[in-house]
This record gives sequence, structure tokens and C-alpha cells, in this order.
Amino acid sequence: MTLLTAEQYEESLRRLNLVVYQFGRRVENVVDDPMIRPSMKAVAKTYELAHVPEHEAIMTATSHITGEKINRFTHIHQNVDDLVNKSKMGRLLGRETGCCFQRCVGMDALNALSIVTYAIDEKHATSYNERFLKYLEYVQQHDLTCDGAMTDTKGVRSLPPSQQPDPDAYLHVVRETEDGIVVRGAKAHQTGAVNSHEVIVMPTMTMRKGDKAYAVSFALPSDTKGIVYIVGRQSCDTRKLEDGMLDRGNIVYGGHEALVVFDDVLVPWDRVFMYGEYDFTGLLVESFAAYHRQSYACKVGVGDVLIGAAQTAAEYNGVEKASHIKDKIVEMNHLNETLYCGCIACASQGQVMAGGTYLVDVLLANVHKHNVTRFPYEIARIAQDIAGGLMVTLPSEQDLRSPETAEWIKKYYKTREDIPTEARMRVLRLIENLTLGAAAVGYLTESMHGAGSPQAQRVMISRRINMTEKQQAAKRLCGIDH
Amino acid sequence: MTLLTAEQYEESLRRLNLVVYQFGRRVENVVDDPMIRPSMKAVAKTYELAHVPEHEAIMTATSHITGEKINRFTHIHQNVDDLVNKSKMGRLLGRETGCCFQRCVGMDALNALSIVTYAIDEKHATSYNERFLKYLEYVQQHDLTCDGAMTDTKGVRSLPPSQQPDPDAYLHVVRETEDGIVVRGAKAHQTGAVNSHEVIVMPTMTMRKGDKAYAVSFALPSDTKGIVYIVGRQSCDTRKLEDGMLDRGNIVYGGHEALVVFDDVLVPWDRVFMYGEYDFTGLLVESFAAYHRQSYACKVGVGDVLIGAAQTAAEYNGVEKASHIKDKIVEMNHLNETLYCGCIACASQGQVMAGGTYLVDVLLANVHKHNVTRFPYEIARIAQDIAGGLMVTLPSEQDLRSPETAEWIKKYYKTREDIPTEARMRVLRLIENLTLGAAAVGYLTESMHGAGSPQAQRVMISRRINMTEKQQAAKRLCGIDH
Amino acid sequence: MTLLTAEQYEESLRRLNLVVYQFGRRVENVVDDPMIRPSMKAVAKTYELAHVPEHEAIMTATSHITGEKINRFTHIHQNVDDLVNKSKMGRLLGRETGCCFQRCVGMDALNALSIVTYAIDEKHATSYNERFLKYLEYVQQHDLTCDGAMTDTKGVRSLPPSQQPDPDAYLHVVRETEDGIVVRGAKAHQTGAVNSHEVIVMPTMTMRKGDKAYAVSFALPSDTKGIVYIVGRQSCDTRKLEDGMLDRGNIVYGGHEALVVFDDVLVPWDRVFMYGEYDFTGLLVESFAAYHRQSYACKVGVGDVLIGAAQTAAEYNGVEKASHIKDKIVEMNHLNETLYCGCIACASQGQVMAGGTYLVDVLLANVHKHNVTRFPYEIARIAQDIAGGLMVTLPSEQDLRSPETAEWIKKYYKTREDIPTEARMRVLRLIENLTLGAAAVGYLTESMHGAGSPQAQRVMISRRINMTEKQQAAKRLCGIDH
Amino acid sequence: MTLLTAEQYEESLRRLNLVVYQFGRRVENVVDDPMIRPSMKAVAKTYELAHVPEHEAIMTATSHITGEKINRFTHIHQNVDDLVNKSKMGRLLGRETGCCFQRCVGMDALNALSIVTYAIDEKHATSYNERFLKYLEYVQQHDLTCDGAMTDTKGVRSLPPSQQPDPDAYLHVVRETEDGIVVRGAKAHQTGAVNSHEVIVMPTMTMRKGDKAYAVSFALPSDTKGIVYIVGRQSCDTRKLEDGMLDRGNIVYGGHEALVVFDDVLVPWDRVFMYGEYDFTGLLVESFAAYHRQSYACKVGVGDVLIGAAQTAAEYNGVEKASHIKDKIVEMNHLNETLYCGCIACASQGQVMAGGTYLVDVLLANVHKHNVTRFPYEIARIAQDIAGGLMVTLPSEQDLRSPETAEWIKKYYKTREDIPTEARMRVLRLIENLTLGAAAVGYLTESMHGAGSPQAQRVMISRRINMTEKQQAAKRLCGIDH
Repeated sequence: MTLLTAEQYEESLRRLNLVVYQFGRRVENVVDDPMIRPSMKAVAKTYELAHVPEHEAIMTATSHITGEKINRFTHIHQNVDDLVNKSKMGRLLGRETGCCFQRCVGMDALNALSIVTYAIDEKHATSYNERFLKYLEYVQQHDLTCDGAMTDTKGVRSLPPSQQPDPDAYLHVVRETEDGIVVRGAKAHQTGAVNSHEVIVMPTMTMRKGDKAYAVSFALPSDTKGIVYIVGRQSCDTRKLEDGMLDRGNIVYGGHEALVVFDDVLVPWDRVFMYGEYDFTGLLVESFAAYHRQSYACKVGVGDVLIGAAQTAAEYNGVEKASHIKDKIVEMNHLNETLYCGCIACASQGQVMAGGTYLVDVLLANVHKHNVTRFPYEIARIAQDIAGGLMVTLPSEQDLRSPETAEWIKKYYKTREDIPTEARMRVLRLIENLTLGAAAVGYLTESMHGAGSPQAQRVMISRRINMTEKQQAAKRLCGIDH
Repeated sequence: MTLLTAEQYEESLRRLNLVVYQFGRRVENVVDDPMIRPSMKAVAKTYELAHVPEHEAIMTATSHITGEKINRFTHIHQNVDDLVNKSKMGRLLGRETGCCFQRCVGMDALNALSIVTYAIDEKHATSYNERFLKYLEYVQQHDLTCDGAMTDTKGVRSLPPSQQPDPDAYLHVVRETEDGIVVRGAKAHQTGAVNSHEVIVMPTMTMRKGDKAYAVSFALPSDTKGIVYIVGRQSCDTRKLEDGMLDRGNIVYGGHEALVVFDDVLVPWDRVFMYGEYDFTGLLVESFAAYHRQSYACKVGVGDVLIGAAQTAAEYNGVEKASHIKDKIVEMNHLNETLYCGCIACASQGQVMAGGTYLVDVLLANVHKHNVTRFPYEIARIAQDIAGGLMVTLPSEQDLRSPETAEWIKKYYKTREDIPTEARMRVLRLIENLTLGAAAVGYLTESMHGAGSPQAQRVMISRRINMTEKQQAAKRLCGIDH
Repeated sequence: MTLLTAEQYEESLRRLNLVVYQFGRRVENVVDDPMIRPSMKAVAKTYELAHVPEHEAIMTATSHITGEKINRFTHIHQNVDDLVNKSKMGRLLGRETGCCFQRCVGMDALNALSIVTYAIDEKHATSYNERFLKYLEYVQQHDLTCDGAMTDTKGVRSLPPSQQPDPDAYLHVVRETEDGIVVRGAKAHQTGAVNSHEVIVMPTMTMRKGDKAYAVSFALPSDTKGIVYIVGRQSCDTRKLEDGMLDRGNIVYGGHEALVVFDDVLVPWDRVFMYGEYDFTGLLVESFAAYHRQSYACKVGVGDVLIGAAQTAAEYNGVEKASHIKDKIVEMNHLNETLYCGCIACASQGQVMAGGTYLVDVLLANVHKHNVTRFPYEIARIAQDIAGGLMVTLPSEQDLRSPETAEWIKKYYKTREDIPTEARMRVLRLIENLTLGAAAVGYLTESMHGAGSPQAQRVMISRRINMTEKQQAAKRLCGIDH
Repeated sequence: MTLLTAEQYEESLRRLNLVVYQFGRRVENVVDDPMIRPSMKAVAKTYELAHVPEHEAIMTATSHITGEKINRFTHIHQNVDDLVNKSKMGRLLGRETGCCFQRCVGMDALNALSIVTYAIDEKHATSYNERFLKYLEYVQQHDLTCDGAMTDTKGVRSLPPSQQPDPDAYLHVVRETEDGIVVRGAKAHQTGAVNSHEVIVMPTMTMRKGDKAYAVSFALPSDTKGIVYIVGRQSCDTRKLEDGMLDRGNIVYGGHEALVVFDDVLVPWDRVFMYGEYDFTGLLVESFAAYHRQSYACKVGVGDVLIGAAQTAAEYNGVEKASHIKDKIVEMNHLNETLYCGCIACASQGQVMAGGTYLVDVLLANVHKHNVTRFPYEIARIAQDIAGGLMVTLPSEQDLRSPETAEWIKKYYKTREDIPTEARMRVLRLIENLTLGAAAVGYLTESMHGAGSPQAQRVMISRRINMTEKQQAAKRLCGIDH
């Protein structure tokens, strides 16, 4: 059974025994926790849509190991179409959930490891790839959600891992045993961590010789002894604890991030995919980053939601035909589709790597992600322009329900006669959610820093450009011959 | 006694008997309500700083009626220096509070009425100006905070007030009595409403002949019978109800907006400043709008806070010397000072109106405000870039305090040895507050819509430009002589 | 012989007898005219590179009619790879020539006609497609350059063609003869017109029933009796008449545009591809526009040249390592590659049309072109920033050569010892050429208006967006069920 | 006689004996040279308008030395109104000439020297200020135009003046004689140099102890023996040599820049204003730069012309009521008036310096200029959008005049019946002139680099910002107390 349903996924999570903290207290029932559940629902959508015939081509793939139909989130890209479909899957799910659905990071980790384990073996005559493929088959067979954990907490930014005052500022191997390696450290900003069956750890940056203990990659069940999750706060997070759903904006889905602490955790040997091969950390980081920068295709889908919401708000206000409103909607779409061009282009220009895995065009994936650090902010700004100030001055759902205030709310926030005031409130709350609230964390700040902050992309763009070709062209045209 | 202290101001509010609703329930003690109190503290700052010698020149003025020293917020601008000092006062208070301090709207209403009552009298031989000056003296004598209430709820956008399905969609006179007029309707988005002693009502737009009942302006004590306040929600508002202050970001100050319902409220004749003179609604709206667009000087001060926070976050991360960080700080400052140029220029080019009141240059005030609808968004985007993703994935203050999680929080979010993790958390929460949280409501969305949405400024820019002069210059230079 | 060499192309042009005017005088020898020749050289590059093995895959294709190897500029796109290769060909030639190479417009006209003639036949049982294919084979066999002529001169913008004061404001059929149709009117802005063997005429916009005489499409040899060319001016055009090449910037290539007048020209029946079928003018215009908006792939190549020139200028100034210079180079590249994403994405998402021709994704092609109306201007601005003011204050080549001034020029414009002053002058002149001079006409203004002005793309974006899908997604997420 | 007329100014230039080269040849008659004359006419406008009563308050001032009425271009700013009037004068002349009128650089040099000579004397007990005032009186009495010459040619950018391979890369004193000092070197990019009576030399940057010979400032008559001018090229410069005026766009005015070589020139002692006081080079450079950055007020006036031209082009096309056109015109105006705010704000916040001269607010002047490096490019881009592609494909004036082509030109470029085709051509040529042609040199590239390149302003913004105040505000608000 390789394609779980959403319900099966939820049930499978209940069988985990995660150590999760939130607001300083242990969360006893993670799956039903009101703050966390919406993010679980978003991941569940990746299972649900795989069963929808209309989306089958996008949401599923054929395993290159077993030949079975699998969820694309567990697939290793075998050709350019796989890469393009991955981008389309991101947009689709972003539109369906209006938030971060969290599962791409594991897919990207699997694909990066399929390249890197192969490459290490080629050079060092190790057998990581075989191990990895076995692990991959397990993931595909059980249709697992994996957290891809890369970002270390980093301590003093100017010092390398091995010279930190606190050696645990970067995750590292503290000792080796017969059964495996014991690791310590923490990974920050882990999207979807407590909704995952597995956590796949990778080094956070290119390591040097002195940092061999930090050049480590492995996978573990998410409830392995010693792994602790501390869930971060999001803007407006506690609205999920309030009575009523309206003020949440997005009434079903959400996201979460966590600090994942590895408190001397044992990794069995068959789950170790890199151990000391610091010379391959660069390849791993760059491959993962390229895949994950492509993954910001999802923001195009979230952009679709925000555009749809802005258009709806304009219609409810009866101003959708004003030329400046129409023009702003065009601008939102133009920016959003420009982003789409980026995630499609880097996929369609993908190339096969040694071992057979297809990798996106690294330059274009960086260019794409870099635009994602800009355009969603402008789209959000325009959405706020169209929505009007009521978006941030609207009374609460309780005011709409209370006999003491309901009539005033309904009377004074009424616009078109055919539109209930409540509908108007709902769409404004959705825009608030996407531009200031919990979803803004994903649509804006995560767009900025996820898969690498803007400067990381600029460095890669600088490296990947063929400047010599450009300079030769210029010199030839103006007659400089040296 | 014309200059209240902050404490006296707070006490004076306790004597009011406002009808305030929030979350569907009546707020019994407005001044001590934890959600509202931070916004009261921000208004109180306008009283406090008037007693600080260093700020005296900016914060106080000499009444042109009594010759007494008064708080500038109750002053009628007598010259260009007054206008420039008003801009400086806005920046100062924005920097001191990091939020909307709410009191400018009343100042702007007073100044607009000083112009318009004079102008109506000139044409219609009425005596509004005399009434107004008496009222003004009362405000100055008691150093009152006034809410300037302009924005109606507007109903069907395409219909004029008198043709709305619900006649109350715009505030209007429902009947006249011996003692005064009775009004009904509501004003939306009223910043600082429940911290005000007075509410000054103005029409929301230019009225036509058929809308005479809507051409009305008056002032009332804020706790007049029939006035009801329904407080709106802000992003992250309920953090003010949580234990601990850290997660609020701004631990002292805040803002609020309210829907102010006028449920058949009697306005005594001596408080009526316009009644049916629809031909002066345009002047009132444009004068108030020009003054209030200048008032967005305050966002320069909030920008100062955000820049200071971003610089601090960069230092705590130890990256403040990276060239791209320095460059981003310069860009934030450049944009912020460009805004400052706008509010200074429109003031320094102000001109005297009939009656002696100085009005800002209307074109430049609109240009200034229009930039305010753009640059704070970009400044906020850069601040998020500099802050790093931790700004939205940081665990709660409770996680920092809880014995179960405190050590991990302190250990793994540590950067420089000399900076406590808690300090780092504080500044990140402040950036969150300003770019996504409660202060983002003021710094971003209110910057967009307050004092008129962007399109309102574009219309005014279009009207105020001397296009003939420009076209003549162009034609002269290229030899077109018709 | 289906692949002409550059030399054969030039010779073939000499056999034409075009009626060309420039500066009010007839141009006797078009091919050798110093103002026109650089643009002929740019077209010749499309022939030259087809013989370079390294570029064969991009520059050539296999005719779907004859199975022979042909120049891609005469090819009908048979699959998505053809579309992607077309984009790559545009970038390649833009980089090789640093200007507009003019030949894409004919390719786009041929492809659009292959779709539209098929579609007309389907509905009207005509046989345009057969005619067209015969014509296409002729073009492919002789490797011809075609001018695709769409833009009418338009007269009074608010009136349709048939109601213009001057009926010739739009090209139209004035009478029918046994041999064919006689047409009158003019096509404006015709890039590369006098370097073409053929001119393919299309209507400029969707025509209505009353404008049947204007719904006409046909092809003619460029030297057909009655066709007159009036060459337009470009910025700095007469530098091509000066002694010395340095001040031209681009010492080999250039572009030109012409007004093409059809002064009662007879079109034989076998060259008529649409005649009165106004119901297909929309399809023709939109298909051609989509193809031609994709063609702005070329500006990525011109951007490559400008980036290479800016980098070279920075190196000659010895400032290429300054962080702000490096950052600006990254920004130029980022914008340029964002454009590349657009032309790749619209190609890779292309779809087959009835008849078998592949059409680009129309929405994304419009999005791409719309970015082309923006980013080259910003890239040019940054290039001027990096180049320094000398770019516009540099003395002439004659000053460098004259014994009276040469020493001062060489001495005072010297920077690095290993760089001759002349090389520095050359690269600055190239940047001038691309940002202010003759090539700026193509890189900037043509990027703005070629293949439709920005507003034309905005209209298409507005039409092609699936807004319903977006609104449904938004409503679902916030719980609005109507 | 302290206020020359335009005619007197022209006559006074004829009395000079300048050594000017252009295109490698000596220019015998500078005043009547067709390439240079338009720039002389632009300077003459500064004389002409001083006699126009309407502009008297802006164009003239009262000498603080003699009490006589003088041209403001020779005035030392005595108060904030002087500074504000200077900004207004810049806008006025920019609008009247549509180009660089060149005379502000001398005014800025005089004002900077009035501050710096005073400051040097204070510290070093010299008597430069007395000398300077005597010189100033001479300038005022004769209403002279001065070239303010700062930018050295700079050689190897990474080396200080005294360590250059060529010691003349920066202008310096080569020897001292009884009569004065002898200087050698060159100043680049000298706007209006050959239209000036005087040249005032200043060091190009802060000098160190080892560069004392380079810390020199002085004034000389422009035709002093040993001074040589080599005039630079501008885009489309030779259109001034063609028959007919239409294709020039601006039919009267223009600008020019020159390399000014000092080939062992003797400076008499009474013309030396700094000689070795390297510790004051920083003050001189920063003061001059601040004044000169304010001077970019002129671009607001040139922007007025471009906006007027774009509006006219839209009207001639009959599209001025299209909502997107109106919106673009608003955007141009908004950006242009934002620039105006900058030059007004830095003036209105000016402060008195020791010695009594008023200096603009340095931070805001830099902010202003920095916007000038951005907004004119965007205004120009929009102007090209509105103008349409014809702006760069329009045939020549000769085509309009030639009997062979005139009818076609008139017929096919006709739009509205009441607008002659020639008028349409004229305004399009003006837009070309301002966005690609000779005036684009001033409106765009000079806006970028004149008075310092963008990075120079960023450095100054960084230095002048009070970051401590901002950080303290931020820390106070979030509860950080260290």
C-alpha cells in the first residue's frame, strides 16, 4: 500500500511518540493540539490530492526502484517532466492550502541525497547510495513525510563549527559506537517537523577539513529517543485557540516551525548517508538548496489565493471595475506569473546528474527563489491596498455573534445587498492572515529566508554566471582584442 | 492649567463613562483594560514629552487665542514654523512610541475647521468660526485629546449618501430640536477613539445638494449618550493578554481602532460647526486630508525604531559589518529620510489661508503620504531580511522561562557571548511587532489607508499639478507654437 | 540549397530593387549604404551561425514539409523543444550582435499564419493553408528573410479603420482584379524591412464586420512595385557616417526601422492568406503577438553584452572588487536571468494547435514581454552607474587620433597601466551605444513597444488569468460558500 | 552694473581667448560654434531671467558684501530662504531650458569656499577668507559665470594622488614662484566649462598628509595661459550640425562637458584659496558636494518638461483620457514632486556655519541627490511608454521637407485632424532628446554621476545618520537595557 489517504496519514501520526514543547509545556496530543492541527491538515492535503484523478499526473509518480505508483513527494526525479511536475504540484498545493504544506523539504532532501551518496561512493568507494536506496524504498513503501533538516543554530557567525565556544552550535557526531553514531546539536526553523515520520539531517554549509565531525548526514524516525521539538510562535497563532473560526482567516490550514534538538541521539549505521566526507558537503548543500529554491513554486499558489481574495474583496466593495483596481489585480497576477516562469524554467532546463537523478538548473533556481524574496511582499502590499483599511480595524467574530453588537456590525459593515457582512469579514480576515497573520509567516518571511536568505542566492548567481562569455561578446562588439 | 501631565491625562480618562465593546462584551474599565491600555500609554506620551525641556519647542506652542503655552496638539498653525514643528513632533513621537500615538487626527480636525468655519462665515454670514474658537479655547484650556472622525462606513460604494439602501451608511442629521441636532450613523477605523475626551465629526467626502443632511460637522464629549465604541482587532492583539511582556515586541505602547456608532445622538447647537453647507464639504475634506497626510511624518519615527531594531539584530548576529547588511541599512535610512523630506517640504511650503491659519502645501502633502503607502513596506521587507528567519520561528517567552525548555532556548539561540539570548529574542519580537504584529497595523496598513488610500492621493496629485505650465515649457522648447 | 551563407544572403539582397528613402533622398545602393549596412550585417549573422557546428542544434531545424535541414528562422514549430530552441536562438543572436537582428518577426508571422490559415479553412472551407504551405516551402527552400508587417499607422486612435477620415490609416484592399487584390496603406516601425526578401502583411488588430476590407493578410517580394520604404532615424545614427569606428560603440552591427508604404500594390491570389475573414483577425493578432513576445528572448542576449561591458568597464577602472559593484553586477544578472526564465517558461509550456503547429503559452509569453518593458531599463541604469560619468563626457575618436590632443586623451583617461586608454574608450562607447545610442533604440524603446506596448500585455494577462479558480480557492479557505 | 543681460553675457564671452578642441581640431569661434552655442544659450538664460520681474525674487539676491542686487548665482546664502530660493531657481531654469544650464556649479564652489576659507583662517590664522571675499566681490560686480572644477581624472583608483604612476592623475602644485603657484593636472566632466569666465579649482577628495601638494584650491580666468579644453561628445550631438532644427528635439538649448587640462598654469597668490591645508579638503569636498547635490533641483524642472511633453504626445495621439495613460502621468508627477520635496527639505533645514554662510542639511541633500539617481530613469521610462515607438522610428526632418517623401510622412503620421504631423514629430523628438539624446546625458547619466555617484551618497547617508538614537529607541521599546 504505497499511497496513504489523508486519514491514514493522520492515524500514522498518532502512533508516533514525539517529545514536543509549546509555550513552555509538553504537548501531550500533538495531532489534536489546536495550534498544531492546522499544519497537520496541510500536510494531509498532499495525501488527499494524490487520490484525486484530476491531479494524479501531478501528484503521483512511478518509483524508479519498484515501478510502483508513489506519491511524488517521495519520488526521485527521473526526467525533466518530473521536475516540471514538481513545480506544478507546489503551485497546486499552495493554492489548495493557502499556506506552507511542509512536505517538499523531505522530497528535496531525498533527491539531494540520491545525487550525493552516488557521488561520494564514486570517489570514496563507499556504499552510501545502496543504503540510501534501501531507505528510499522504505519511505516510498510507507508514503512517509520526511522533515529535511539543514539549518544549524550557528552560534557565533564568524567562526567555523569546530571553533565555536559551544561545540553544539552546529550538529555533530559526539561519538561512534558499534551500532552507529551519536549526534548532538539542533536544527532551527524546521517547517512541519512535528507532522513528519522521519527527519533527514544534512550539514548546513560547506565544511572544511577541521570540521569533519560536522560533515554528517542521516535519517531517523521522528520519535527517536533524544529528539526534542520546541514549536515556535507565529503571528496571530493563538487565534487558533479562540472560539469561532472566522478570525483565523484560513479556517482549515496553517503551518508551524520548530527547533529540533538532538540530545545525544544514536543513529544506526544503516541510516548514515555521510560521515566525515566534508568534501561533499558543498555538493549536498548546493543540490538541496537548488531543489528547495525551486520548491518555492508553492508561493505562486499562495499568491493565487491572495489574488483571488483581493478580487473578491474588491467585488464585495463594489469597486472591481474601477480602472485602478483592475490594474492592481493585473500587477499582482503579472508578478505571480513571473514567479511561475522561474520555477518552470529552472525545471525545464534541468539536467541529469551522475547516477541518473535530474537536478534543476541551479542558476535559474536561485534566480527564481530570489524573486520570491521580493514579489510576494509587493503582491501583499497591493492586496492590502485593494482590501481597504477595514482589514485591520474589523471587530472580532465575537462582536459579530454577540447580541449586544451583532446588529451594528452587520448594519455598518454592509456593502452590496447580495453579500452578507460575514462573507466580507471572512475574506478580509483571509487577507489579514496572508499579509500579517499566521500565513504571512510563510508567504512573506519564509519566502525571504526559507531555502536560504537573499544574499545566499546572490552569491550563487554570482558564481553560476558565465561572465567570460559575456565579456568576450562585449569586447568583440566594440573591437577590444585582448 | 493648560499642560496636563501623563498622569493627569490618565486620570481624566477615568472620569469618562464610555460605552466600549470588545470581543462582543462591554469593557467595564477602559483605562486598565490590558488590550487598550498600551494605546492609552501612547497618547499619554504626547502629554509627557510636553514637559521635557529638550522637546518643549516642538511639543508646545503659544495659543493664538489666549497667548498661553499649550500642547501643540491643540494648536492652530500660525506660521510655517508651526507646520514644520508639527512634522518634527510626529517623527519624535513615532520614535518614542514605535506606534500610532493617535492624537494628530484631532489636531488636524481642529485646524481644518479653523479654516472652514471661517470660510463658511465669509460666504454665508454664519457665525461658525466664533463657536469654533470658543470650543477651541475649551480644548486648549483642558489640554484635551480629540478624535477626528471622518470616514463613514459608506454602504454601496457607487451610490451617494442620500440614495443608499440604508440611509445611515453615512452619518447624517435625523432631526433638529430646539437644543440642537440629532445624528445617526457610524465612523469607521477611528484611531484612538476610546482614549479621547472629544470626538470631532466631519463629512467623509464632497457632498452634493441632495446630501445636505450629510453635510454636518460637530464636536461632542466622547461619552455623550448614544455614542458606542466597538474596538477592532489587530494582528497579535491577544499577546497583550498573555503572561510576560517579551512576546509583545513593543512592551509598553500600542494602538487601537474602533467603530464609533452614533445612535441618535443629540449635538447642542454650540457644538455644530457645519450644518447643510454642502458647498464647503470639499474644502473641509481636502484641508483635513492635507493636514492629515502631513501627519504621516510619524511613520518616519516608527521607521527610526525599525532601523534601530534591524541594526541591533544585525549586531547581535555579528553580521553588522557584512557589506550587504550595511548596504541594506543605508537603503532603509535612505527611504526613511526620503519620507522625512516629504513631510518637511509640504510644511515649509505651507501658506496662510483666509482667517490666518497656515495650511501645508496640498500637492506636496499628498506626494508625501503617497510615498508613505510604499516605502514602509519596503523598509519592513528589508528589516525582515536583516532580522533572519528566527523572527518568525522563535519559541515563546514561556519556553524561555520554563525549566523544561529554558536551557535549550538559551543554548541554541545564543550568538555573541556578550549578548544574552533574551536580548536577541526581544529585538526580534520588536521587528515582528513592527512588520507583522500589532504595530504593523499602524506602520503598514494604516500607512496605506490612513488619511486616504493611495488612489485618493493620486487623484489629488492629478488635480494640483500645473500641467499647462509644463506643456507650455515643452512646446516652447521643441518649437510648437499653438 | 536551403542554408544560405552570410555572403550568399548579402548577394541575394543586391539582386533586389528596393525603393528606399532616407534623409529625404532615394538610397541607390541599399546594401552598401553606411547607415543601413550594420543592420544587414546583423541579419547576416542569422545565416552565418547556422553553419557553425556548435550552434547547429539551435540555429537549424528539419522542415516538416520537406524533411530538409533549414534555418530555424523559416521553421514551423513542431514541438516544445522547437519553441525552447527558438528562445535560446534569440539569446544567442542578441549576445552575438548586441542589437536587433530583425529576422524573428518573419518567423513569427509564418508560424502565426500556419495556425490561422488552418483555422480559417476549417471554418470557411477555404484553402489558405495549402497556399500558405506552398509559400512556406518557397521561403524555406531559398532561406529567405521575411519582414512581418503588422502595425498600421492608425490615424485617429478612437475610430475603427473604416471610419477614419483617411481610409488609408489602416492598410486595406482598394480593389480586386483577376490577378489578385490591390492594397493601400502603410506599416510603421518595420524592423529590418530593407534587409528582407519578403514582406508578410497582417492586420494590426481584431477587426469587426464593417472593417472586412482591412482583414487581409498576404506576402510579397520586398521589391514589388508600389512598395516604398522610408527609413527612420535612430539615436546617434550618423556616427555611422563618421570617420573611425570607435564612437559607434558597436563597431559592426546595428538595426533600423522603416515606414513601409503600400501605394496600390497588387497581391497575386496565391500570396493572399486572409481576405475578409475578420472573425480570424483576433486569432492572427494574438498568435503573432504571443510568438513575438516570446521573441524578446533576444534582449537577454543583449543584456549579456551590457553586463559583460559593465564588468569590463569596472575592471578597467580597477573597481570590480568593490562590494557595491559586485552587488550591482549580480542585480543585472538576476534581472537578465529572470527575463530568461520568462522566455523559457512560455516555450516549455507551449501547446499544439489544430494543424500541428506549437504555440507558446500565451499568458506566460505576455508576462515575459511585460518584464522586458521594465528590466532592461533598470539593467541599463545600473550599467550607467558602473560605467561612470565618462561614458557621456568622453571626447571623440578624432581627439584620440589628432596629434594636437592625443597625448592628453591618453594621459588623462588612463587608469590601470595594463589597459590602453583606447580599450577603456571602446567599452564606454559600447555602453553608451546600448543605453543611449543606436542600440538603446532596440534594447530600451523597442523592448517597451515592440510586439505590443505594456498595456497590450496587461490586457492579455487580465484575459488569460483563471480568476474563477483563484477566487474559489480563496473562498474555500475562508469559509465562504457562495 | 551687476546684472548682465543675456546679450552682454554673450558679448563678454567673445572677449575670451579660450583654447578649445573638439573632434581633434581647435575651435576658432567658440561662441558661434554650432555644437557649443546651445549650451551657451542655456547659461544665457540665467542672465535673461534675472531681468524678468516675475522671477526677480528667485533669480536675484542682495549681496551681503556690497548690498547691491546681484544674480543669485553669485550670491552667498545668508539664510534659509536663500537656500530654498536656490532650489526653486534650479527647477525654474530646468523647466525653461530643458537641459543643464551649467551655472550652479560655480555658485556651489563659491559658497563652499566661503565656509572653508573662513574655517582654515580660524585654525591656521591664514587670510584666505579676505582674499576670497575680494574675489567674490569681483565675481558679483561683473556677474561672472564660474566653472567649479572638482573631479580629477584619478588614474589608478586604488592609489592616493601622491603614489600614482602618473603624478598628474590628480591636479597638483608643481612649483611655487614669487608670483604664485604653478599647477598641473586635469579636471574631467566639466559642465559648461567653455561658457565660463572663471574656473574655480577644488581638490576632488579628502587628502592625507602625504598629498599636501594636491590640497589646493584657486580661481583663474578661463582663458589663462596653459588651460586647454577638450569638449566631450554627447549622444546625438551632431544633429546640431544638420540642416533644420526639428530633429534636435530641443531646438534652442543644450549642454556640454569638457576635459580641462592645466598644463603648468600659474596661479597668482591672490587667487589661491587653499594651499597645503589637507585637513580642510574633507570639509571643502563635503560642503561643495552637499550644495551641489541640492542643485539637482534642476532635474525637477527638466522633469516638468518631460511630463509636459509626454502629456502633449498623449493628447496628439488622442489617448490622454485612457485610464492607464492618466495613471502614468500621475506617477511621473509623483516621482518628480518627490524629488522636489528633497531639494526643498534639505534647504529648509539648512543651518548657519561659522562665518555666516548657510549650508543645506547635508544628510537630506544626499538623500535628495540619491533619489535623483533613480527617479529620472523611471520618469524617462514612463515617458517612452506614453510616447509610443514612433519616438525612435520617426524619419528625419529632411523626409518631412523632401518633395519625394513629404506627402507620405504627413499622411501616415497624421493622428488628430487639428494637429499638424510636424507638431507630433516635434514633441516626439523632444522626448527622444530627453530620454536618449543630448539632454538624456544631463537628465539621466549626469543625474547618476554629477555631484557624486550613488555610492558616494550612500556613504554620506551612512555617516550622517544618528544610529545610536534609533537603536536606543528600539531597545527601550522592547525592554533591552544595555
